Formats: sequence, structure tokens, C-alpha cells
Amino acid sequence: VPDLSLRESVRKGDPDAVREIVEATRVFSAAEVETAVDLVREALRSGASSGYRFLFAERGERGLGYTCYGAIPATAASFDLYWIAVRPEAQQHGIGHLLLSCTEERVAGLGGQRIYIETSYRKEYARTREFYARAGYTLEATLGDFYAPGDHKCVYVKVLDLK
Amino acid sequence: VPDLSLRESVRKGDPDAVREIVEATRVFSAAEVETAVDLVREALRSGASSGYRFLFAERGERGLGYTCYGAIPATAASFDLYWIAVRPEAQQHGIGHLLLSCTEERVAGLGGQRIYIETSYRKEYARTREFYARAGYTLEATLGDFYAPGDHKCVYVKVLDLK
Repeated sequence: VPDLSLRESVRKGDPDAVREIVEATRVFSAAEVETAVDLVREALRSGASSGYRFLFAERGERGLGYTCYGAIPATAASFDLYWIAVRPEAQQHGIGHLLLSCTEERVAGLGGQRIYIETSYRKEYARTREFYARAGYTLEATLGDFYAPGDHKCVYVKVLDLK
Repeated sequence: VPDLSLRESVRKGDPDAVREIVEATRVFSAAEVETAVDLVREALRSGASSGYRFLFAERGERGLGYTCYGAIPATAASFDLYWIAVRPEAQQHGIGHLLLSCTEERVAGLGGQRIYIETSYRKEYARTREFYARAGYTLEATLGDFYAPGDHKCVYVKVLDLK
């Protein structure tokens, strides 16, 4: 993708940008979209003390995708990847992989040793789960019927290489 | 325990009461104590919309123990038990079991079907884990080294009877 840039600082326009990206994926419910936007607002208000960090992939002013991640409280070196989303028209260009691997680098830079990702076992998320598996994440646990009857939660983890 | 009463509403003095109870157990770190107190403050500020509900066990004005629980966002009927604590001098009188079973009744009344409890696999928590097992909770998943190297996270679940 030409002219792609990555940015960590959170700006005033990012709640709207995140709303656009997350809605465009058509994967998330209205409530989930609000949650995603709230995390950006929280980071704008409280900075790093919010516990939420971001990485945005942009072409010019246009947000193509982003990750939201943070240290898990009361753990020594575990991080959660709360969100990863890429606009549909920008998918299949490796932007998701780039965002994920750059997020891992930043987590390692912050002293993180493990990254957790939670997702659904539903078939609509099969591509998402394959994406995590290809990126080196292991399915460590499944919580049956967690989200709803028949809708299990999968917990993926990747142990980061210590360099 | 004579004169024991249960209360759901959150009052102005509860942040201090929770701090006292949680500190008295000597199980939690300073940061964990602050988290426990913050949840009460959040419930005082925002009520049920905070997502945190409480059940206090008291003798007169004195708080002996409490639970903090709530619906897990984006799930149909799953609840988390965030905290359960009983003052050491009030333990071994069934107050923990009473708090837990009354919390389960309230969760069922709110439409909850599953209650999750997360705890550590460390040996300091062996009694806590036995307490959950006796109360009908099943160890559904273990996340290795989640809290720290050698300190795994255990996820317990109880599926509530539909009456």
C-alpha cells in the first residue's frame, strides 16, 4: 500500500475515524461500535493512564485501520489486544498483519511478554481466527456458550520473543 | 451469625467499608485494593449503568463481607463475579457461601445464566479455589503464566439452574 503511515498519538478526530472504520467492517453491533469509540475518547481524555493505546494506519488523512491494546491490570507482562479493524476496501493488502506485528513490537517495547486476543467461535469469525493463527497466535482456551448459547469465547495468546 | 443482614443498595460509606474488608483479608495488593474501592465509587456515581452491582453482609453498621458482580458486556446472559471478600474474623461462619448463593439468586433474577470467576492458580489461593469448587463452580480454562511466570489464571464457571 503506497503512502501508508502509522501513528500512535491519539488525535481529536480519531473517535470519528474509529467509528467509520469499525462500522465499515459490518462485523460489530451498534453497542460494540460505541464501546470502540468510547475507548478512543477515554484515551483522548486520560492519555496513557486510560490503559488504552492505539496504532493507526493511514493514507494521508484517511484512517484505513487501527489496533487498540493495553497492559492487563494486575499482571506482570500480559497485554490485551482489544480491537483490530481494517476497512473492507483496504483489506487483503497486509495492513492487518502490519498493524498486528507493529503492535507486537510496541508491546515488547513496553515490557509485554504475552498478548491475548478474545474472539468468538462463530463461523462468521472463522477468517478472523485464521488471521490470528497465521500471525502466530495459539488458541489457549475456549469458554463454552460465553457470548450466548452456542457462541463460545476463544482466547488466543502469543508469547513474544525476547530479543 | 446472629443479626446478619444483606443489602444491595450502595451507600456513601461503602468505599471505606470495602477498603477495610479487602485490606483485612491481606490477600490483595495495594493496587488491587484501589481497584476494589474504585468499583464502589463508580457504582455510587453511576448506579446500575456502571455495570457493577454489590451485595453487602453486615452486622449492624459493620460490613463483614461483600460481593461485586455484573453482566459481561456483549454477552447474552453471562455475569462476572469481580470480587468476593469476607473479613478474616468473620470467616468460617458460612458468610462467604451465603454471599455467593444470594449473589447467584440475584444474577438469575437479572436473567443471568452463567457466572464466571477468575482467580490465580498460586497455592495462596488454594483455599479460595476449593471454596468455589464446593459451591459448584467448575474450572473451565487455565491461562498459563497469565499473571506472571508460573502464576496462571483459572477461569471458573457455574451454569445457573433455570427454574
